[in-house]
Amino acid sequence: MECIEKRLDGEVKYSGVIVKVRLDHAELENGKVVRREVVEHPGGVGILPIDGEGNCYMVRQFRYPFSQQLLEIPAGKLEYGEEPLGCAVRELSEETGFEADELIDLGSCYTSPGFSSEVLHLYLARGLHAGRAHLDEDEFLNVEKHSLSELLDMVDRREIPDAKTVIALLKADRLLNRKA
Amino acid sequence: MECIEKRLDGEVKYSGVIVKVRLDHAELENGKVVRREVVEHPGGVGILPIDGEGNCYMVRQFRYPFSQQLLEIPAGKLEYGEEPLGCAVRELSEETGFEADELIDLGSCYTSPGFSSEVLHLYLARGLHAGRAHLDEDEFLNVEKHSLSELLDMVDRREIPDAKTVIALLKADRLLNRKA
Repeated sequence: MECIEKRLDGEVKYSGVIVKVRLDHAELENGKVVRREVVEHPGGVGILPIDGEGNCYMVRQFRYPFSQQLLEIPAGKLEYGEEPLGCAVRELSEETGFEADELIDLGSCYTSPGFSSEVLHLYLARGLHAGRAHLDEDEFLNVEKHSLSELLDMVDRREIPDAKTVIALLKADRLLNRKA
Repeated sequence: MECIEKRLDGEVKYSGVIVKVRLDHAELENGKVVRREVVEHPGGVGILPIDGEGNCYMVRQFRYPFSQQLLEIPAGKLEYGEEPLGCAVRELSEETGFEADELIDLGSCYTSPGFSSEVLHLYLARGLHAGRAHLDEDEFLNVEKHSLSELLDMVDRREIPDAKTVIALLKADRLLNRKA
């Protein structure tokens, strides 16, 4: 069954700092017209930096929607017109101070395809050279070093709820440990 | 470093069908007051149904924000006051027609903790009994049977972009195949 929803028109209902909300009319394959709500987001990157000893550099950061400190991979939003790879190099440097010899593409993910256009591009960073972190003003985060196996145990114990972080850790495990 | 952002006040800027957008003022630990945008979402569940032969029952569904058909685990939003487990039983039945002897908790994930309050509760469903799918009006989806190993290959080939689906598949693999 082919099923396509055809956009008829739309209206921006909210235009904020990070997101924009659009409310469209769309025609279903049965001819019925429905409303479709889309949260538009610029997308972003997430980078799992791992050194030669299997240590990963993670950030612990306050996340306002959950009033909670979360352990996540370094990440950030795409700036207007920015390529994901360049954004990954920039965010890795800004948040951890590292430069990497190699950024391995772990694929992209749609965080909430039912209502949001957000796409996150994930990378594994290897060949790390220490530099200097330079955070945005008003950005507070701590870099923490954990071994990949310790982080995978934390995933199993459900101590890491952030979706992009779980995906990057489990994909890195597959890539580095399971496919040799 | 403890770092907390204290909510001062907020305003609902958009109240839609699925999401609500709130714009708050929050006080940072350095005393500065910033604006924090939160997309409020009721949260939901995702269920990976797997039979005794290792076959998984997936849904292929048009996702409007990407104008694309995506292969995903059966999933749905929590209704007001609904418990995740009850929602999982309901969505599994509605989308695939299956009832399950066992729903194994795969943990919860925050899809976009930077700006959205959405939490998805993930389950592995085993002991499947065929019933009858009864979709919502205006819901069009196809159920497809794929083996878990085939789906993991699709994850490796980046053919499955949906975050919750990738997490459920990789966690099921860890649970069923890696920890024996």
